[in-house]
Amino acid sequence: MTTSRPSNALTDLAERTLTCCADIASYTEEPGQITRTFLCAPMHDTHARLDAWAAALGLQTREDAAGNWRASRRSQQPNARTLVIGSHLDSVPNAGAYDGVLGVVLGLALLDALKDTELPYHVELVGFSEEEGVRFSVPFIGSRALLGTAEELLTVTDAQGKTVAQAITEYGLDVGQLAAAQLREDVLGYLEMHIEQGPVLEAEDRSLAAVNAIAGQSRLNFTFTGKANHAGTTPMHLRRDALAGASAFVLAAENLARNTPGLVATVGALRPLPGASNVIPGEVQFTLDLRHAQDEVREAALAQLLAEAQQLAEARDLTFTHEVRLEEEATPMDPALTELLGEALSQEGHVSTPMVSGAGHDAMLLGHTWPAVMLFLRSPGGLSHHPEEAVREEDVEAALRVGTRFLQLLAEREEAR
Amino acid sequence: MTTSRPSNALTDLAERTLTCCADIASYTEEPGQITRTFLCAPMHDTHARLDAWAAALGLQTREDAAGNWRASRRSQQPNARTLVIGSHLDSVPNAGAYDGVLGVVLGLALLDALKDTELPYHVELVGFSEEEGVRFSVPFIGSRALLGTAEELLTVTDAQGKTVAQAITEYGLDVGQLAAAQLREDVLGYLEMHIEQGPVLEAEDRSLAAVNAIAGQSRLNFTFTGKANHAGTTPMHLRRDALAGASAFVLAAENLARNTPGLVATVGALRPLPGASNVIPGEVQFTLDLRHAQDEVREAALAQLLAEAQQLAEARDLTFTHEVRLEEEATPMDPALTELLGEALSQEGHVSTPMVSGAGHDAMLLGHTWPAVMLFLRSPGGLSHHPEEAVREEDVEAALRVGTRFLQLLAEREEAR
Repeated sequence: MTTSRPSNALTDLAERTLTCCADIASYTEEPGQITRTFLCAPMHDTHARLDAWAAALGLQTREDAAGNWRASRRSQQPNARTLVIGSHLDSVPNAGAYDGVLGVVLGLALLDALKDTELPYHVELVGFSEEEGVRFSVPFIGSRALLGTAEELLTVTDAQGKTVAQAITEYGLDVGQLAAAQLREDVLGYLEMHIEQGPVLEAEDRSLAAVNAIAGQSRLNFTFTGKANHAGTTPMHLRRDALAGASAFVLAAENLARNTPGLVATVGALRPLPGASNVIPGEVQFTLDLRHAQDEVREAALAQLLAEAQQLAEARDLTFTHEVRLEEEATPMDPALTELLGEALSQEGHVSTPMVSGAGHDAMLLGHTWPAVMLFLRSPGGLSHHPEEAVREEDVEAALRVGTRFLQLLAEREEAR
Repeated sequence: MTTSRPSNALTDLAERTLTCCADIASYTEEPGQITRTFLCAPMHDTHARLDAWAAALGLQTREDAAGNWRASRRSQQPNARTLVIGSHLDSVPNAGAYDGVLGVVLGLALLDALKDTELPYHVELVGFSEEEGVRFSVPFIGSRALLGTAEELLTVTDAQGKTVAQAITEYGLDVGQLAAAQLREDVLGYLEMHIEQGPVLEAEDRSLAAVNAIAGQSRLNFTFTGKANHAGTTPMHLRRDALAGASAFVLAAENLARNTPGLVATVGALRPLPGASNVIPGEVQFTLDLRHAQDEVREAALAQLLAEAQQLAEARDLTFTHEVRLEEEATPMDPALTELLGEALSQEGHVSTPMVSGAGHDAMLLGHTWPAVMLFLRSPGGLSHHPEEAVREEDVEAALRVGTRFLQLLAEREEAR
C-alpha cells in the first residue's frame, strides 16, 4: 500500500499540472487566442497563478527585473549547489497551452512531489519572461537576465517603438535592479522539461526522451537569376528558367538530408518573379534552413549544397547568389546529466535512447554556461505553435515519475561528491 | 537605275514606318511610359497620326463604333474581294513601341509602296482598338466588332465599373452603330504583321518568318497539400513537404516539354504556404501554362502531366487537385496563304520555313472565320511587353520587301481565279 500512494499522488499532480496550464492559457492578450508576449499584462495573472501553488509548498517567490518568475527552495545542506529548473511563460501569437508553460508547471509539480523530501541542493525554479522572440525580435531575454547578459538588450525596440527598458518599467518593475536578476550561485545544472514540438516520439510510440543536443542551424537566403520571358513564345531550349533551377535545388537539398542521418534541410519560403502564370520566372528567391546536432556535419552539408547550387545554376545558364542569415552552433547537453536522466528513464521503464532537439530552447543559451539537460514529452500530432497543441496526461504523469527519479538520483550524486 | 529606285523607296518607307511608330509611342495615358488601353483619349491622336499618312495616299479613313481605325483602298476590278490587313493599336501598361502598332503602320507603308500599282482586290486596313484585354479583361474587342460578335461585350465593366458601351460613348462614338462595324465583304484573307515577341528568329539569325499556326493553350491551377511542420523538429522521413512535391512536378513538366517537339510548359507562379523559412510548406499553389500548335499533342501532354502529378503526390503522401482556367484550341493559319507568303520570303532571299506563334493575336480570332496568315519580324533579345521592346530597321525594310512581293503574288493569284 505504501508503494501505491506516491503513484496516486503523481496521478493527482499530473491532473493539477494540466489544470494549471489550462488556467494560464486563459491569461492572454488576444481574447479567444492564447497570446502572451514579453511583459504583457496577462503575465501578472500568470505569475499570481504560479504563486498560489508555490505558496502552498512554502516556497518564496519573486519577479526579477527582467520579468522572470522565480521560486526558491533552499537546501539545509551546507555548501549546497543549485539546480535550476526552468522554461518560459511567454508564447507565440495564437499559441497552444503547453509550449514553455508546461515545463514551469511541471517544475512546481516536481517540487510538490518532493515537498517532504530533503534534497542536498537548492532548487531555483524559473518561469522565463521571454524565449520566443516575438515582441522584440530577439529571443531569450529572460534567460539572458539569469546569466547577467540582458543589459545590452535594454535599448532594443518593439513594433511600437518601445524599448525593453520601457516595457520593464511599464510592467511595474525596476530596470535598475536588472543586475540582481543574475543567478550568482554555484549551479550544478539546468533542467528543462518541454513538449517535443515534433513527431518523433509519437512515431516511436514513446512518452519521453532525454535530449542530448540542441541542433545547430544555418539559415540562408538564395537567389537564382535567369531571364523572364513570354511563356508562349520562348521555346524550351532558349529558356533560362530560374524556377526550374530552384526546383532542382529543393530536391537536391531534400535528397542530401534524406541520406545524411540526423540532418534536416528545409526550403520553407520561395518566391518566383515576376510570378505571372504566362511569364517564365526570371528570378527566384528562397530560403534554406539546415540543422544537425554536429556542426561539422551541418557545415559539410552546406558546403555540398552550395556547390550543387553552383553546378545547377551553371548547367542552366543561371546566376546564383546566397547570403547567410543565421549560423548557430549546436549545443551539446551535459553528458553526465543526460546519462543520469537516461538512468531515470530506464528505472521508470522507458527507452533511454536520447534524441536531438531541432528547435531552440532556453537550454541552448544556458547550456553554454551551465551543465544542461532536457526532458521532452511527446507532442500529439507533432503539433506546436498552434491552438491544437496538446500533451497526453499519461505523458505528464510519466514526466513527473521520471523527473522525481532524476532529482533523487541527482541527490545521491550530490551526496557522493 | 529603275531597279534601285524601289529599293531606295522601301528603305525610306522603313524609316518612315519607325518614325510613325515613335510618334504613336508618345500618345500615352501614363507620362513617361507607353500605355494605351481601349478607347483611352490618346487613341484620338493615334488615329490622327495614321489619318495624316493615309490622306497622303488618298485613302478614305474612319473610326468604326468599336473604336477601330479603318482605311479603305478600293480596287477598280468588278467583283473584287477584300484583303484585310490589320493589327492592334492598344498596348499593355508600360509597353514597348511596336507590339501591335508596327503591323498597322507597316500596312500603311505597304499601301504607300504600292500606291501606283493597281490591285485586283480591295484592301481594308484596320488598326484594332483592343487586343490586349487590359481594360476589360476580355481581349479582341476590336476584331470581334469586325466579325459582328462584339455586341455581347457591351455590358462588361472595367475596374472603374464603366461598361464597354459607356467607354464607346465617352470616347465620342455611337454605340448604336456597332453593327455597321462588321465587315460584310467577301474576304479573301487576313494578313497580320507583328513582332515575334520571342527569341526564335534572333536565335536562328533570321529577319522574318511566316506563321503557320497559333498554338493552343491550357492554363491550370494546381494545389499540392501535405502538412506544415516545424523545420527543426520534423525528421525527413516524417515530412509531407508540399514544396518538394511541387518542385518535382516543375521538373517533370520541363522534362516532358524538352522531349516533345514544339511543346512549351511553364510554371510561372508558385506559392508555398505558410511560406516561412522555418516551416515545412504544407501547401503549394502553382500554375501550369502548356502550349502546342497541335491540340492532340497538348492534350496528351496534359494528361501525362496530370498522371505524373498524381504519382508524385501519392509517393509523397500529398494530395493533389487541379482546376482548368483556360483551354484554347490551336488556330492553324490558311495553308495556301502561308505557302504564298513562304514563296514571297524565298523570292526575297529569306528562309521560308514557317514557325508557330506561341502567343495569341487578332489572327487567332479572325483565323476561324477568314483565311489568315501572319508575318513575324525578329524581336531583338526576344523582348516584348517591355519599354525596351525593339525592332531592327533592316527587318522592317525586309518586311516591306516581302510584304509588297506577297501582295503582288496575291494579285496574280486573284487575277488567275
